[in-house]
Amino acid sequence: MTNFDSIFTTSQQAYLQYKQLDFQKRADFLASTAKGLEARKAEVIAIACQESNLPEGRITGELGRTVGQIRLFAKLLLEGSWVEAVIDTADPERSPVPKPDIRRMLTPLGPVVVFGASNFPLAFSTAGGDTISALAAGCSVIYKGHPAHPQTSLLVAAIIQEAIQVSGMPEGVFIHVEGGVAAGQALVSHPIAKAVAFTGSLAGGKAIFDAAQQREEPIPVFAEMGSVNPIFVLEEKLQQESATLAKQFAASLTLGAGQFCTNPGLIFVPARHAASFGESIKQELDSVIPAAMLHEGIASAYYASLSQLSKKEELQWLQVATQQDMIKAYPALAQVQVEDWLKDDLFQQEVFGCFAMMVVYESVEDLVAVANHLHGQLTISIWAEGEELSLHQSIIQLLSEKCGRLLFKGVPTGVEVGYAMQHGGPFPATTDSRSTSVGAYAIKRFARPIAYQDMPSELLPLALRNDNPMGIWRMVDGVFEKC
Amino acid sequence: MTNFDSIFTTSQQAYLQYKQLDFQKRADFLASTAKGLEARKAEVIAIACQESNLPEGRITGELGRTVGQIRLFAKLLLEGSWVEAVIDTADPERSPVPKPDIRRMLTPLGPVVVFGASNFPLAFSTAGGDTISALAAGCSVIYKGHPAHPQTSLLVAAIIQEAIQVSGMPEGVFIHVEGGVAAGQALVSHPIAKAVAFTGSLAGGKAIFDAAQQREEPIPVFAEMGSVNPIFVLEEKLQQESATLAKQFAASLTLGAGQFCTNPGLIFVPARHAASFGESIKQELDSVIPAAMLHEGIASAYYASLSQLSKKEELQWLQVATQQDMIKAYPALAQVQVEDWLKDDLFQQEVFGCFAMMVVYESVEDLVAVANHLHGQLTISIWAEGEELSLHQSIIQLLSEKCGRLLFKGVPTGVEVGYAMQHGGPFPATTDSRSTSVGAYAIKRFARPIAYQDMPSELLPLALRNDNPMGIWRMVDGVFEKC
Repeated sequence: MTNFDSIFTTSQQAYLQYKQLDFQKRADFLASTAKGLEARKAEVIAIACQESNLPEGRITGELGRTVGQIRLFAKLLLEGSWVEAVIDTADPERSPVPKPDIRRMLTPLGPVVVFGASNFPLAFSTAGGDTISALAAGCSVIYKGHPAHPQTSLLVAAIIQEAIQVSGMPEGVFIHVEGGVAAGQALVSHPIAKAVAFTGSLAGGKAIFDAAQQREEPIPVFAEMGSVNPIFVLEEKLQQESATLAKQFAASLTLGAGQFCTNPGLIFVPARHAASFGESIKQELDSVIPAAMLHEGIASAYYASLSQLSKKEELQWLQVATQQDMIKAYPALAQVQVEDWLKDDLFQQEVFGCFAMMVVYESVEDLVAVANHLHGQLTISIWAEGEELSLHQSIIQLLSEKCGRLLFKGVPTGVEVGYAMQHGGPFPATTDSRSTSVGAYAIKRFARPIAYQDMPSELLPLALRNDNPMGIWRMVDGVFEKC
Repeated sequence: MTNFDSIFTTSQQAYLQYKQLDFQKRADFLASTAKGLEARKAEVIAIACQESNLPEGRITGELGRTVGQIRLFAKLLLEGSWVEAVIDTADPERSPVPKPDIRRMLTPLGPVVVFGASNFPLAFSTAGGDTISALAAGCSVIYKGHPAHPQTSLLVAAIIQEAIQVSGMPEGVFIHVEGGVAAGQALVSHPIAKAVAFTGSLAGGKAIFDAAQQREEPIPVFAEMGSVNPIFVLEEKLQQESATLAKQFAASLTLGAGQFCTNPGLIFVPARHAASFGESIKQELDSVIPAAMLHEGIASAYYASLSQLSKKEELQWLQVATQQDMIKAYPALAQVQVEDWLKDDLFQQEVFGCFAMMVVYESVEDLVAVANHLHGQLTISIWAEGEELSLHQSIIQLLSEKCGRLLFKGVPTGVEVGYAMQHGGPFPATTDSRSTSVGAYAIKRFARPIAYQDMPSELLPLALRNDNPMGIWRMVDGVFEKC
């Protein structure tokens, strides 16, 4: 097993310099990385397509998203409210004891281990959201490339290294390493590591989480492990928009061969319309041109999961997928009655790929039982007519306990990268429901509060000085202000 | 072992109602609890003094602090910025796909298990910071009273129950239970529990943390496990203020028989002045009137720790404490050379009580070695002259990696309850350095973000509606506003 001691020592030294740089310098470094990605766009897209089997349009979009999110973090750094600067001023006259001056803000956690994801060779990989949000927070990053796209990873790592040179960052603030499961475990277990970010399977994420919690010093693990992203279709809505909904659902299910963590693998349909809606979805699926999956291992796993499910007598198959080559994913759809669905946890396990289970329910009571039984999810969608929705408020309350994002229109795939996005959710969707891995607030994962008591003004971090040189929003004696 | 199923079911049902109440109602409930505590002040103080052996002045102060912090959370609820409301508005014209409306805010985690602390029968117990911040966040609480002060706990629980009645809260939003270690484990392991708060020993906190991480669904544990709160005295400062510093240090060390998690158990002193400063501290300690500890078990543990340390040849004892009865703590002080201190981890383990270790150092290099070797702490204090401080900036940087609060004046005991307080720190001070257990932001431990995508306006939580009926600060399309 590789010994990572010297890598971590380098990362730690770089971190101690890097964290002291002002936010403008960090932002310049991020901007330089974004610029580098754009400059070598053609090269990056070509190699990523080749290694991932994803079509050029998709990878081009993913590159745009990656660059966009790097710029979002650069902007966030300069806006500055993310550091949660809070100042309680002193009162030397207070009796019986004088009140000290206390100033609090977020400070980076230290060197962070980031794992690349197979399904997003750019946006969740080398210069993806985890790496960039950790760097934005002031952490150094040790990045383990995903073995499914080694050349893409090395190319993007080279672009980051170039940005480090150009913007004069300490070398070692980003280090790229390669390796398998053993290397991953060694990285997570290294005493210098202070946090871990991961996007991938439940088995992989849970193994990393367990290793991190069993360390002498447990560290936070932000593992996004996907989910089945249930859609609840209410009766009136279905009656009115059956054809559109079937189309929307089938498109979301088969997008990118279903290889998204927000892929809707579970849909709840009222009994009265189940047959016709199932037929509509089936027709949509029939016209889908099967796409290549990320690699043969993922394709095998997809068909193995279907084969395991095919042994379940409770399932009625509306669309059977037969493996016709080593790589392509044919969509599949099974139907089950709600009482059977409730009895078997296998029916809410994620099948990575374009398979969905349609659960047929009869009543509001069924929905309550489902909501209580449901595992934690990244997203839950509720498709209802306005009137209908207000009659189901208790269901909405129960479902909001089980997810990080609740949708009332559209489909869960296509995660917006903005300020309000929450891409996380109760276990087993993630290992930390208090965090997001997409959007501006992903930065908060990699920082912790520190308070300075009676620190001489000239030594205070800029964000906490009296004259507010960064011009950021701060809470001063309980009141928000920006002066 | 007690079966807690029915208790958790009640708590869960109460939670589902309680979390939907508007913040004004929650704030009224908290205010009513504060009022109840004040109304029955004499009774509460009498029983708490009797059960904890703490003097009336101290308990009176603690009651004031407890009431004050309840009111702080009530105020925080109404100010509302703590929910981190963020709105990204829709753009139906965006191409290639319309931009949805996404609104994000914090939502409560669910039923929380809180453990009472022996050393703060009021402020960290039944209606203490953990319980109140969880209730403020919208969680229900299952509270396990500390066996060291059962009557105090039951009395305060009755006051909370009264407030529940008066303010019309769902019964079961706060449930008081009693029991030992097995009960504690059962509470933490119950599937309905969604988070745990604990203040106490490293062994106790770590056992709870491990149990919570080994659940089928791991849950966050906010265990504040204390630390040795090192003070670094720099040469010039010591030269100028030796007598005052000795007095300050001895007073902080022996306050409340040393039974504070911020008790300074470690002090680093430059070699040139070690002998005289040690003598000054010793003289101060000589005049301390030994106080009764919380209970005999804690007193035995104190003397057992001292006895274990007395076998260490590297220690030179400046003040020896001999047990003279079953309950009183006599202060103790040992001296050790920095090179010896660095060799043995036992020398930075907390001794709960009024014992300190004085470490003699020679050089800045020694301080660097110490800073790198030091475990995570709640607080670190640096006593220096202004000039001196600016020469030690790299030491400050290293020390800031190891603590939640960095002090430049005064002593770590006496934790301010305000907005800027950070009472937490890297492991083993706590199990989650990203949280605080004192001050306004303690509320954030018990909430997670949820995003609502394209939710009909009338169904949105008040904090996220267009007209901002609560009048709170929100980030709208990346800009902070309050309109």
